[in-house]
Amino acid sequence: MKLLDLYSKMKSDLNVIERELEQSITSDHALLSEASLHLLKAGGKRIRPVFVLLAGKFGDYRLDVLQRVAVTLELIHMASLVHDDVIDDADTRRGQLTVKSKWDNRIAMYTGDYIYAKALTIVTELNNPSIHQILSKAIVEMCIGEMEQIRDFFNTEQTVRNYLLRIRRKTALLIAISCQLGAIAADSDRKHALSLYRFGYNVGMAFQIRDDLLDICGTEKQIGKPPGSDIRQGNITLPVLLALRDPVIHQELKQEINRIRESDGQADASRALHLIRGSHGIDEAEQMAARYIDKAIKALEELPGLPAKKNLMDIAHFVAKRNY
Amino acid sequence: MKLLDLYSKMKSDLNVIERELEQSITSDHALLSEASLHLLKAGGKRIRPVFVLLAGKFGDYRLDVLQRVAVTLELIHMASLVHDDVIDDADTRRGQLTVKSKWDNRIAMYTGDYIYAKALTIVTELNNPSIHQILSKAIVEMCIGEMEQIRDFFNTEQTVRNYLLRIRRKTALLIAISCQLGAIAADSDRKHALSLYRFGYNVGMAFQIRDDLLDICGTEKQIGKPPGSDIRQGNITLPVLLALRDPVIHQELKQEINRIRESDGQADASRALHLIRGSHGIDEAEQMAARYIDKAIKALEELPGLPAKKNLMDIAHFVAKRNY
Repeated sequence: MKLLDLYSKMKSDLNVIERELEQSITSDHALLSEASLHLLKAGGKRIRPVFVLLAGKFGDYRLDVLQRVAVTLELIHMASLVHDDVIDDADTRRGQLTVKSKWDNRIAMYTGDYIYAKALTIVTELNNPSIHQILSKAIVEMCIGEMEQIRDFFNTEQTVRNYLLRIRRKTALLIAISCQLGAIAADSDRKHALSLYRFGYNVGMAFQIRDDLLDICGTEKQIGKPPGSDIRQGNITLPVLLALRDPVIHQELKQEINRIRESDGQADASRALHLIRGSHGIDEAEQMAARYIDKAIKALEELPGLPAKKNLMDIAHFVAKRNY
Repeated sequence: MKLLDLYSKMKSDLNVIERELEQSITSDHALLSEASLHLLKAGGKRIRPVFVLLAGKFGDYRLDVLQRVAVTLELIHMASLVHDDVIDDADTRRGQLTVKSKWDNRIAMYTGDYIYAKALTIVTELNNPSIHQILSKAIVEMCIGEMEQIRDFFNTEQTVRNYLLRIRRKTALLIAISCQLGAIAADSDRKHALSLYRFGYNVGMAFQIRDDLLDICGTEKQIGKPPGSDIRQGNITLPVLLALRDPVIHQELKQEINRIRESDGQADASRALHLIRGSHGIDEAEQMAARYIDKAIKALEELPGLPAKKNLMDIAHFVAKRNY
């Protein structure tokens, strides 16, 4: 099944979630609602809600319960984006002005805080402390990941392992618990919830590697922002680290990155992008993403043969190849 | 009983909380731990933990349960301070460099996020969803309060009611739920938990009004930062609003505030402070604080005559008069 077909099959449930998302951030404070809605309307793939719903199929699928988990996870993702944009000094996200650029950093910080808190009020309505625990621990890890990203800005000496640990915290964990919490909220088998966690974790790792590849190889039209944004803000990603291993370009690429750092991200990144694109870094990063996808699909093996299992596989294959 | 005697009587339990606070923010990320500990070591009155413990006396006082609530509330308070300092562009707090000034705004934002999240992991270990609910709703309100403060910066036309609603969200609510959650965690009578909530709410209102008065009438030594900080950053507080009602100084005070606004808070605030100090605004604000204290003490009436009741009264009286 193509991804579009899957979304259309899930449309009525996803519509419910979309409505709940909108309602959840309509507060009695005009500016907060406006800033939050601006972000919501900018869209997104809603991949976390999709995972929650599909994971819920492996248990007692109740939309009224699952929607709370789905809305919470999407809100947490949104809140982290708002705070990211402050840090990254990003002016556009998904082709739209960011909150920090449309308003200012202060508004963006409190909008993020507000969306985080709102997410928690929704999930705490489910009287399931173990869901609350898993979620709050994941947010802690996400924050640590964000701090690691700042620490590692422009650090060309960092290891690949370092990068992998960082994206684990920054991205993979939230996708992993989207799958896990969907299963838990549906009272599915404990073993299934763990398999789904592993699936989500590996898809999440591949998803982020693919995202980092797109920032180097994609066009502005594909990715909704100018390519090379990562490198300009100092975020040294997998393809860059792998490209730096090539002795022929190592010195020049390092110099280019230093030049960008010294210009506070204002310098042109096209030479650096050219060097990375021409290196083995692209292929090798793609291979690593593919290996994570293999592991994700393997994690599904022990799950019962429901249609949702096939859907999850389709998404994994899509993530491996996506170019937007 | 003097406040110092009360602290010394509670010393062993407060020490446990201090240790837990420290442990809770010692993460595997050096910079996060350092920034969080910096804030923790700067001290503070730990008034929220004190309220949690005293409220717990009206039920089944179990330190292992109450300490989680106390640590969570103090961490949430700390997290909000870190984010406040970003917004306020504050360089010192309690006479110490702020996180945003010692490191930078990005570090401060994620340190705040991290401390918030850490707080939630601690409280979710208590398998009591109603505590999680009350807490997450209070954080939402706090965020709205912070946004209102930004919206109202330098607005000399705002009403006193506006100010009161804002400090309710920004300060009083968290103190109110400190009392309420202490009682709930100790399985105390539902009616007692509500009385304690009302007590905390009214003390919290008085506490903030007193804080705002100190920023105008206190010395740098008393308050750990230069007086007039509020006005320089645009935070128009109760004494200012009341002073603006005086037709004799209205025009000049408004002009002074506008001058400070136009200078981006760089202009000298001493003339504005002088005008406010000489107005009826000080007395009237003090009277309002005193009325909240009266209401707080009245809220205690229906509670059983335990020593903790007397302690709460003593704290309320102290808040009414504190000058640090």
